[in-house]
Amino acid sequence: MKIGLIGLGRMGVGMAANLLAAGHELSLYNRTPGKADALVARGASLAPTIADACTGDVVVTMLADDRAVEAVVQGAGGVLESLAAGALHISSSTISVALSSRLAADHQAAGQRYLSAPVFGRPDAAAAGKLFVVAAGPARDIEAAAPVFEAVGQRTFNMGEDPAAANLAKLSGNFLIMSVIESLGEALALVDKGGIDRGQYLEMLTSTLFSAPIYKTYGSLIIEGKFQPPGFAALLGKKDIGLVLEAAEALQVPLPVASLVRDRFLALLAQGGEGLDWSAIGGLAARDAGND
Amino acid sequence: MKIGLIGLGRMGVGMAANLLAAGHELSLYNRTPGKADALVARGASLAPTIADACTGDVVVTMLADDRAVEAVVQGAGGVLESLAAGALHISSSTISVALSSRLAADHQAAGQRYLSAPVFGRPDAAAAGKLFVVAAGPARDIEAAAPVFEAVGQRTFNMGEDPAAANLAKLSGNFLIMSVIESLGEALALVDKGGIDRGQYLEMLTSTLFSAPIYKTYGSLIIEGKFQPPGFAALLGKKDIGLVLEAAEALQVPLPVASLVRDRFLALLAQGGEGLDWSAIGGLAARDAGND
Amino acid sequence: MKIGLIGLGRMGVGMAANLLAAGHELSLYNRTPGKADALVARGASLAPTIADACTGDVVVTMLADDRAVEAVVQGAGGVLESLAAGALHISSSTISVALSSRLAADHQAAGQRYLSAPVFGRPDAAAAGKLFVVAAGPARDIEAAAPVFEAVGQRTFNMGEDPAAANLAKLSGNFLIMSVIESLGEALALVDKGGIDRGQYLEMLTSTLFSAPIYKTYGSLIIEGKFQPPGFAALLGKKDIGLVLEAAEALQVPLPVASLVRDRFLALLAQGGEGLDWSAIGGLAARDAGND
Amino acid sequence: MKIGLIGLGRMGVGMAANLLAAGHELSLYNRTPGKADALVARGASLAPTIADACTGDVVVTMLADDRAVEAVVQGAGGVLESLAAGALHISSSTISVALSSRLAADHQAAGQRYLSAPVFGRPDAAAAGKLFVVAAGPARDIEAAAPVFEAVGQRTFNMGEDPAAANLAKLSGNFLIMSVIESLGEALALVDKGGIDRGQYLEMLTSTLFSAPIYKTYGSLIIEGKFQPPGFAALLGKKDIGLVLEAAEALQVPLPVASLVRDRFLALLAQGGEGLDWSAIGGLAARDAGND
Repeated sequence: MKIGLIGLGRMGVGMAANLLAAGHELSLYNRTPGKADALVARGASLAPTIADACTGDVVVTMLADDRAVEAVVQGAGGVLESLAAGALHISSSTISVALSSRLAADHQAAGQRYLSAPVFGRPDAAAAGKLFVVAAGPARDIEAAAPVFEAVGQRTFNMGEDPAAANLAKLSGNFLIMSVIESLGEALALVDKGGIDRGQYLEMLTSTLFSAPIYKTYGSLIIEGKFQPPGFAALLGKKDIGLVLEAAEALQVPLPVASLVRDRFLALLAQGGEGLDWSAIGGLAARDAGND
Repeated sequence: MKIGLIGLGRMGVGMAANLLAAGHELSLYNRTPGKADALVARGASLAPTIADACTGDVVVTMLADDRAVEAVVQGAGGVLESLAAGALHISSSTISVALSSRLAADHQAAGQRYLSAPVFGRPDAAAAGKLFVVAAGPARDIEAAAPVFEAVGQRTFNMGEDPAAANLAKLSGNFLIMSVIESLGEALALVDKGGIDRGQYLEMLTSTLFSAPIYKTYGSLIIEGKFQPPGFAALLGKKDIGLVLEAAEALQVPLPVASLVRDRFLALLAQGGEGLDWSAIGGLAARDAGND
Repeated sequence: MKIGLIGLGRMGVGMAANLLAAGHELSLYNRTPGKADALVARGASLAPTIADACTGDVVVTMLADDRAVEAVVQGAGGVLESLAAGALHISSSTISVALSSRLAADHQAAGQRYLSAPVFGRPDAAAAGKLFVVAAGPARDIEAAAPVFEAVGQRTFNMGEDPAAANLAKLSGNFLIMSVIESLGEALALVDKGGIDRGQYLEMLTSTLFSAPIYKTYGSLIIEGKFQPPGFAALLGKKDIGLVLEAAEALQVPLPVASLVRDRFLALLAQGGEGLDWSAIGGLAARDAGND
Repeated sequence: MKIGLIGLGRMGVGMAANLLAAGHELSLYNRTPGKADALVARGASLAPTIADACTGDVVVTMLADDRAVEAVVQGAGGVLESLAAGALHISSSTISVALSSRLAADHQAAGQRYLSAPVFGRPDAAAAGKLFVVAAGPARDIEAAAPVFEAVGQRTFNMGEDPAAANLAKLSGNFLIMSVIESLGEALALVDKGGIDRGQYLEMLTSTLFSAPIYKTYGSLIIEGKFQPPGFAALLGKKDIGLVLEAAEALQVPLPVASLVRDRFLALLAQGGEGLDWSAIGGLAARDAGND
């Protein structure tokens, strides 16, 4: 398949490598082109402009936030202007539900096709082709995109015909991760002040009811207080909880735990946490308890 | 080992059966004695009084709440008056941290030994001998209790020398379960109102980052709205979150998610939820969102 | 003074009447011009276009929200295009801090002057010229605007040189009103369920420590459950708490009570409260407690 | 009237002085008797035991908390044992709703009469006879107590026939004060970080919608950060919000703002705030925002 990929951050680079490895003809665009060098050496072509990455059947965008996606897709010389009628845009960035809806409408008006397909997984999962793809859009487009999803991910979940649903599912999944961080942070602050060894307590949790990897991962980070370097930056966490609450406001759904998580991020950032991992909000309960 | 067991509710019955099966000499006391019949038929003896259940090396108590434990242990003719010097009381009930500390002091003053060993697991796990035992107390007593723990559980976790630590660990574990119920309830209310099929969304969660059984169990209960009959009653959930907050107050640890969960239980009970499973608090976010 | 006034809603009409009564030469613009008839009969002139309302020394805008202000000020043929260099725009609408900052920059770039001067008070206070004016901007401009403020208000408060500060002060004042509604709603739900007559309880509060009129006003509305017709609509309340949280996010200030109030508004609207007064959020605590 | 008064803290001393000044025959008991000296010099008699303070028509108790009241009233040689049949106990301490109900039952069983009459006002109001009395109990007893209430207070509010109602009203009034402190703390943190002078902002609030004295008092304390010496200690604030939540739990009324205030007190105390005024919780929003 002839595929363009726009956005060579840590996630995009891994996805590109796996698309290449799967035998696709890959054209890469990045604002700072140096990022593509290693991939070009392995057979990808460098697209000097966004339009050059939009000449195939499919273009995948994997960018940082709404603003970047708006610029790349809706801007002058962007994807909307460049993509052929009938070609498919797969948006894998974690963007707002509202923007995803606007992109769907814009592509439809332009006679193009649009899928939303954000992913779960950190850069190492992207490099390994082990992402989880959360896709939504017209059934035939999801079918058409299967080779792309198979190359980058270990499994695809279909959230229905409305592309924005995939973004909502992704964002609410991130909200659940943040709620685990917050709740674990509270429980660990409590048992620590009660004289329990937190490592043994976490071992107990993760060997019994809380056997999911996120409990082990985030529990360890909180216990070690190891919030640098960031695996996923606190600023991105704040962005995502903001997008969750924005979607919840539009849908009129009160989410008290999400509100609390947002306040945690604001406190973290206000106190100098810009450079930390998002799991650093899990350390605030201990600080409130005077544990440090 | 000669063991007394006091409390033949759904948990105690399962534990007794496994102690018998492991070859221990078992004496059973229950306020309403009929509950012991089947076990007596299989070789246990019936203790007409609490004192009669306290003639062995070990007595295990598995009762509903602080009040029941206070009556059985500290009351006239209770465990404290009946147990021989040097004999061991293993308290497996989910009781308050404060009561556990008082029991430890009382037993020490009486020349007796005391362990706190609450368990994780529902009645089916108790029947199967598959409980998780969370134990705390002097190391030599935990060692001495190993045959008991091995009979009733699949694994024992040691929370240290202070018996009350096991109660704090158990309660904070229950708090984490409740925080999962609340967070899932919020996320499911959001995606439902956003037009996503909740079953597919839950499948996505539990196949990826949230692979722990509690997400599957409680997510399904919330989606089906199947809160009757209660596996674990809402009133017990309210009791436990109350004990969490009581311990947190004594230790001066603010727990905002726990406060929120407590308010959910009050709302549930105020609106007629007495007969429901504790997971029914996971339905309140949807009700607030007008989803029903 | 030659003054233009744009926006003849319930607040603008009252302000216009008082500007006229104070002897100013008044030109009125409203999207639906009929609203000006009575005022024209008393000496005001009708401005057929926004530009026609911008020919004097001062133009006052009193509009519903950010969108309306953006259209009127920044739109084609709007205030920015129409106002003479050196003339003064007084923005009295309750708008976002961010928009107020943008307007300040735009007017400066256009060689015009800009004050932010939102007001406290309901339509009856506007009609009586008894508003409280919360003004911010360059000192000489506030001085120049004094005749306007004196005509429409009973007192002016100066929040400093940065126009956006007045908007922040106004919004955070509205937040405090909402926090009174929420807290009163909780207290009234509690004493009601405890068997106390709410009217006597409110009389006690307002005769002692809580003698401010808002306690009497909102307490009575909550007790009577009289949320229709709206004096200030729930949708506007939701808009304002959203602007408070938006400003708080930009400044990185966690506001847990504000987050809670926002969730109340979402619940209210999700359950059909669109047509109600904002004080209807004060009835939700009673509903959660099953008091109805 | 022949009156006994038990409890000569800062509040009790003021009340005693005004009872004396009103011409009543006053007998005083305090655990540490030296506190009575000045009042004895002015004509009061010193009661060496609780029983000696219970020989009149009325005994008033004004003590620190539930524990003190239980000891004085229900303890050996206490008010219940000492008071004559038909004599009246007026409990003015801020105690729990549950204890007040138990005292009512105990006095009834003993053939004695019982009123609950907690007060609003600080020690200076007690000294000036300007307290607000919140009374509840049988109508004829409230009538009988009128001379006492008139001596110590400026006005009496009747909360009905159930004595515990007065305690609920007092506690929920204290909750409202705490909610003002919290909300003001948030608003002041916001405007401060937004560059507004907090003093001018508070002047604006208290000159307009928030003209009640508590806004001025607590707003000034928060702005000055002057939380020492305590006018009303943080530990007492925590006690009272605990009693509010305990009553709310018994009545099944979720109170989210009260939960939040409780968490603030825990954070304050955990971080060394034991010696501070309760208004110090109003400084935590600024700390979370990194304003210091």
